[in-house]
This record gives sequence, C-alpha cells and structure tokens, in this order.
Amino acid sequence: MNAPQNSLTTPVLPPELITRLQQAVGEARVHLDSDTLKTWGKDWTKHFEPNPSVVVFPANTLEVQAVVKLANEFGIAITPSGGRTGLSAGAVAANGEIVVSLDRMNKVIDFLPADRMVRIQAGVVTEQLQQFAEEQGLYYPVDFASAGSSQIGGNIGTNAGGIKVIKYGMTRQWVLGMTVVTGKGDILRLNKGMIKNATGYDLRHLMIGAEGTLGIVCEVDIKLERQPQDLRVLVLGVPEFAAVMHILQAFQNRLDLTAFEFFNELAIQKVIAHTGIPRPFESACPFYVLLEFEGKFEAVVDDAMQTFEHCMEQGWVIDGVMSQNQSQAATLWRLREDISETIAAFTPYKNDISVLITHVPAFIADIDAIVTEFYPDFEICWFGHIGDGNLHLNILKPANLTKDEFFEKCKVVNKHVFETVQKYDGSISAEHGVGMTKKDYLHYTRDEVEIEYLREIKKVFDPKGIMNPGKIF
Amino acid sequence: MNAPQNSLTTPVLPPELITRLQQAVGEARVHLDSDTLKTWGKDWTKHFEPNPSVVVFPANTLEVQAVVKLANEFGIAITPSGGRTGLSAGAVAANGEIVVSLDRMNKVIDFLPADRMVRIQAGVVTEQLQQFAEEQGLYYPVDFASAGSSQIGGNIGTNAGGIKVIKYGMTRQWVLGMTVVTGKGDILRLNKGMIKNATGYDLRHLMIGAEGTLGIVCEVDIKLERQPQDLRVLVLGVPEFAAVMHILQAFQNRLDLTAFEFFNELAIQKVIAHTGIPRPFESACPFYVLLEFEGKFEAVVDDAMQTFEHCMEQGWVIDGVMSQNQSQAATLWRLREDISETIAAFTPYKNDISVLITHVPAFIADIDAIVTEFYPDFEICWFGHIGDGNLHLNILKPANLTKDEFFEKCKVVNKHVFETVQKYDGSISAEHGVGMTKKDYLHYTRDEVEIEYLREIKKVFDPKGIMNPGKIF
Repeated sequence: MNAPQNSLTTPVLPPELITRLQQAVGEARVHLDSDTLKTWGKDWTKHFEPNPSVVVFPANTLEVQAVVKLANEFGIAITPSGGRTGLSAGAVAANGEIVVSLDRMNKVIDFLPADRMVRIQAGVVTEQLQQFAEEQGLYYPVDFASAGSSQIGGNIGTNAGGIKVIKYGMTRQWVLGMTVVTGKGDILRLNKGMIKNATGYDLRHLMIGAEGTLGIVCEVDIKLERQPQDLRVLVLGVPEFAAVMHILQAFQNRLDLTAFEFFNELAIQKVIAHTGIPRPFESACPFYVLLEFEGKFEAVVDDAMQTFEHCMEQGWVIDGVMSQNQSQAATLWRLREDISETIAAFTPYKNDISVLITHVPAFIADIDAIVTEFYPDFEICWFGHIGDGNLHLNILKPANLTKDEFFEKCKVVNKHVFETVQKYDGSISAEHGVGMTKKDYLHYTRDEVEIEYLREIKKVFDPKGIMNPGKIF
Repeated sequence: MNAPQNSLTTPVLPPELITRLQQAVGEARVHLDSDTLKTWGKDWTKHFEPNPSVVVFPANTLEVQAVVKLANEFGIAITPSGGRTGLSAGAVAANGEIVVSLDRMNKVIDFLPADRMVRIQAGVVTEQLQQFAEEQGLYYPVDFASAGSSQIGGNIGTNAGGIKVIKYGMTRQWVLGMTVVTGKGDILRLNKGMIKNATGYDLRHLMIGAEGTLGIVCEVDIKLERQPQDLRVLVLGVPEFAAVMHILQAFQNRLDLTAFEFFNELAIQKVIAHTGIPRPFESACPFYVLLEFEGKFEAVVDDAMQTFEHCMEQGWVIDGVMSQNQSQAATLWRLREDISETIAAFTPYKNDISVLITHVPAFIADIDAIVTEFYPDFEICWFGHIGDGNLHLNILKPANLTKDEFFEKCKVVNKHVFETVQKYDGSISAEHGVGMTKKDYLHYTRDEVEIEYLREIKKVFDPKGIMNPGKIF
C-alpha cells in the first residue's frame, strides 16, 4: 500500500450528518480517524488511494437502514465493506464515501438442521461459516484462498467461486435467502430460505454479483451440505494442453469430481523453489492436473485408478500420483494453492478470465501467442479451475523492469487479452467482479444494450445513485 | 375444457398488423381460425376462456423480435406460449393477445461435449431434451409429470422443479445462458453458457421465473449431467408425520438422495384402486416415504440398508421395501407418480405450496385442522417433495357436491391456507408460478414493498406493458 497522496484530502461531512450517524449506530461506531479511514477505505487491490469520509460499524439491519436513509437524505455515497479481500477494487472508497463496514454483523442467527440451513449476518467470515458447518457435522463448500478474511456479504457481492465449483457451484447456489437494505432504504426479505418459490422475479439473484451497487446484504440464509468423506487427490503430469480436456472428460464420465485444477510447469517450479515441497513425481511436464474426488468406497478409488491407467495408455498422462491419506492430499493441494502466494514476489499482472471449457485450448494458445509476440521475455504462469473454464493468467514481472514500466507494458497486452476473451464469448472477470479495475473493459463481455438494462435496474433500487457509485459501470 | 362463452368475442386486429405479422413470420405461420385460437390460447388451467386475436409461430429469435416490435408499435399484448402445461394460467390468452407459440423453435443448435452443454431453441420439449442427453450418454435431471409436453422456455418461465430437486435443484441450476427478446424488443444474449461470470447483474436469473412478463426466451444453454447409475428406490411405511423428518435426516447424513417424496394413506389407496398396482407391503400406514439413490456400489446399498434398520429400530418406519431391479423401481415410483392422474377423477382442489422443511410438520397439522374444522367431510390427499419443503395439497370433491359448489367452498379454505403459508414464511406457489390463478394471493409471500420493485423491474424490460400482462401482479 502506498501512502495517500497529499493532493487527496478527506471531504468534510456536514456536522449534522455525523451527529445523526452517531445517533443511528452509536457514537463509538462512527470513526473519523485517518488510520481507520485508510484501512477500511481499501481492499486487496493496490491501485487506488483510499479516501472515505467516515467509517460506520452498524450492528444490525435496522442500523444499516438508518445509515442508508441518511446517505440518501444528505446525498453522500456509501461503500459497503466486508472482508476487503476483493481484487477489483469493489470495496475501495476513494471519493469521500461513507464506508459501511459489516465487521460487527458477524453473528450466527439460527440453525435449522432439517433444512441444513444456517441464518447468519452478512459480516460472518467465510472460514467462520465453514467451521460452524463442521461443528454441525455439515459442510460449506465455497472455498478459496481468502476464506480466512472474506465475509459472506462480500462473497455474495462477487458471487465468489473458488476451488470446488465443479461439484458445488458458486456462492449463488448456497444462498437460499437474504435480507437486504436497498439503495432506497427499503428492507427486503428475499426468498426466506426456500428451495422452491415461484412467485415472481427472484430479486435475490439480482443482488448476487451486484458488488454492493443495489443495496447492502445484511442477513443471509445459507444452505449447508453433507461433509465429503475420504477426499483423494490425484496430480497428473500432462504432455500437451489438449490432453487436459481428454482427462477431464474421462474422469467426469466415471466419477463425481470435487475439483479439477490445472497449472503449468513454470507455476510448479516457482512453488517448489518457494516452499521446498518436493515434486509430485520425477518427470517434469509442461502441464499438471490436480483432481479430487470422494474415495469413501474402494470401488470408487478403483474406478479412479482404472481411469488413470486409461489416460496413461492414451498418452494423455505421463506420470501421476494419488494421495493415500489426508496429509498427502494436503501436500498435493499446496502445489496448486500456494501458487498465488509464491508468485506475489514477482509482482504478477493478474487476470481472472473465463471461457467455455471447449474453447480453453484455443484461448490459451492465442494468449500465449500474443504475449510471446509483444514481450517474448515475459513469463506466463497459468493456473486455474479448468473444470469451470476459469483461468488465472499471471504474467510475471521480469527483474529488469520497474513495477510501473511492467504494468505500462501489461496495459498494452490487456486490450489484446480482452479482445481474445470477446472472440471466444468469454468473461473478463470470472469470479473477482468488475469493481473499478475492470469497468473500462466491461463491454468486452456485456454489450452496450445489455449494460443499459443494468443501468436502468440500478435506478430501480438506488434512484439517487448512492450505493457504491463508480463500480461495475 | 368448457366451450367458450358466447359473450366473448375475438377482438379484430388492424389488418395492417396482420399483414406485417405475415411478413415477419410467413403467411402460413399466422393463424386466425377459431380452433387454433382456442387451443393455443389456453394451458392446463381450466378456469379461463381462451380469447386471443391471433397465434403466430416464429421460427427463430429474429422472427420473435419482429413480432415483439410490432406488438409495441400497435400496442397489442403478447402471450408467450410453450407446451401450455401450466397450472396457474400463465400461458392463457384471454384478452385478445397475440399468442407467440414457440412450437416451431424446437431445434438442438449445438452440443459441446467438453462443457456437457447443449444449446437449444426454447421450444424444445423437456422429454426431447432428456432423450437428447441420453443419446450423448448424459442426463438432464429436471423431470416432472408434464415432461412429455412442457417446453424448456415454459420451464424457465416458472423455474420448474419436479421430483429430482433434492439432488439436482430447479431448472435455474441447469440454465447456463439464454438469448431473450425483451418486451422492448431488444435481443440480449445472457451469460453465454459460462459457469463463472462476475460481470454485473445476472439478468438470466431475472428471466427465470418471470412467466414471460419480461421477454421471450428464445435460445437456451443447458448444462447436462452424468447419468445416474443403478437407481434404487425404497418405499417406507411411516406411523406419524414427525418420523418423516427423522428419516430424511438419517438418510441424508449417509447418502446422496436423488429423491425424497411423501404421500399419505389416502393417496396410496386411490392409486391402488385406480391402477391395480399392489401395495408395496402388507401394512397400511398413515404416511409413506419414497426415496431414491444411486446404488452403483454395494457399499452404498449396505449403507442404505443399515439406515433403514436404524429407522425401524427407532420406530420411525413400520415396514419397507427396496427395489432389486429397474422394473421394481419403476413400479414403486408409480405409487407416487400416478397420484395426480388418479385423483383427477375427484376434481381436486390443488395447491402447490412450500415452506422450510423444519416447518412442514406444523404446517401440515395446521392445514389438516383448518380443513377438518370447515369441511369435516372433505378428504385431503397429501403428497409432495418433502426433501424440498414442497407440498401438494389436494382436497377431493365429495360426490354429493357439484364442481361449482365444491370450488366455492374451497375458496373459503383458500384464504386460511394462504394465511397459514404466510404464518410459516412460505410460498403460495412452489413451482407452478403465479400466472392469473395466484396473483390475488401474491402478497401472502411477497410484501407490497417488494412487489413494487417487481413492477419497476417490469417497466425496465417492458415499458409499454405488452409482455403477458395480467400475469403475476
């Protein structure tokens, strides 16, 4: 995080607004000190200077509603704030906003075992929810690197996905209901936890992925799942990318996969160098697949072994290893999960893109060609959730370039990358949202006619435009 | 179907509109004869007289767009029309509408094996999609009684569910993308088949469950699934309703159920009398559970047997039977699946309601008490998808009442039923939609503030109010 530039000054709020915010949430819950402003004004995106006017910490839905009504009355924008782990600056307050932090709204409200449903406040941290589920003998399957800090409300804002989507879907699939305060200040209780409810437009799904631009999600009904048992991990070495697709189909035809990830040799090299984890097997391969399944029954493990052998016979796999216990499984997972942390040292230029699985091979080849043409000395670290068509493209900064020089060059690549995304009807943001960093590129995925509908829907929920303005579009 | 009343006359369309409709979709695809008007102007709901002005059969999205633009220009309403199997009059054209039938838009456009995705026109019949999936060695899991006639576009309109929801979810879960013509006449290509796409509001989910009031779904990207293998069916006799809940939890903790249905003794009696199927076991029980799971591995079947024994020991189950082959499984399914057809002879007063699973026992007790209080001689045939909290309440007409007398009395019950739904935060329509038959009761599930948001969203997509007016609200 750079220090705020001196040219930025925090706007002065009307004293009456501050008094009334204090009345709404309690004096001690309205923070104006610069440390709080700096910390709660930003997320994990590092490109923007935080510059909110005030940070408030409401305790419940009614307090959130009171703040939203004040924001409408005084015409001051709000930035909803969760775990602030976003990578698209969706939770950055750079223009004197009121930051509404959900940090205090972190309570479990109710648990309904027959429905396998838990009702929580939206400030509950993902890991806290995962642990709560485990204590009930159940499972919350949405998982990703920032689960220790990200909050459910924020996950809903970007419809977070992660590493188990191939079996369990995105956050969307686990949200059975929510209580939301709209930009107009209305409290809506959406879907009330039901599985089946065909009574008009499902506004819940409009809130999911809205990045806090329509309202603030305050309470959520989350569905939990049976715990997976005896998870087995296979890591396979793959000679060419096309084989990854054959492997996916071969395994999917016989097993219910809980993960299907891929990474390239550069990624594994970096992880091994950084962590000291041994190679999964001797052979270095251009590509690797990590897949996971429930191995509760020996017959399923046999199916997996037979499929592995079939893939070897076909030449799709050069070598492979299967975990025999939990500790081995965890070590194999680190080959994939430690990539982000490992390459952070190389100031990577990151993209989170998605195309149909069918188009992945051609898409990767196109992007490789573009980067090689423009910057033959750049290294590309590929990894991602191939089973969902979701690729993380990370270009590593060469040592001889400064960060600014590097990002300047990457910006040139950006346009070509997004043109390629568009060529394959893909998404410029698979699971990170649009926020501020992607909004200039939104038109590569959503056409202008469609974006106009988004704007009109925004007006329905937030006619004064106070909810997280400047995000998405 | 009653004959149309003489008082209804078909409105006369401006001749210019007819000519231009003919130019838009072809002369032979514009029907004005009274047989076609009567047939395509109604769905399976029998309470309304069909009275459209014209029925058109476009062949593709562009033709649909042309019709929608004409409707806007001439200020004539449109009723989108699929398989017309709806039970809430969502596809009834009773006021001189242009019926836009998707019957000709029944083509499979593309199949992408790596994505397990099929791109189809929205007029494809559910069963046709199921068969196509099977031919590819895959599975389309949304299934219900009207699958032989219902079209995918209509399924999307009510977010159809059915008998496999406990494992596979509603139609919503299988729609990866769609091309829609909005009420304004814009063509939107929504989500393009991607699993992960976090680029602003997901309009696709707004269209699902909209009952054709926002636009016409023309093409759909449908996800397919691995075929289930060796499905096993258990039918269990249950002494009291509370035990049904224990059985659900016991089985869910050990198995991935593909169905969990229930019905009462009255239902099984009627089916046995109507079909001649034998009782599944000797004991007559107040309630029955039918559950299904994949029994590919012997160990899973053993788990099921152990759970069954546990339920017997606990006194939750009196007797039970497990299918040993496909034919036995099919016969057991008929005990549940033949209920609707069987009781049709009793002119049932039908409701399709949903509450949280936790609330099902109290809800059923309340409804039983209400009906018993008002009409002690009425028989209630209960059945439904307990695993989703979805109950089909069917009150059978006593032989001594005429249909009109009976429905008049049921209307009195209606209010109490829906008040009870509201008391338990439930849904007045779980999977049948609101259409015309439920719209007066919508406020029992969605409050007035929320309904106002629905109205405003409608205006965004359909400012002239030409898309299926009079439905939902």
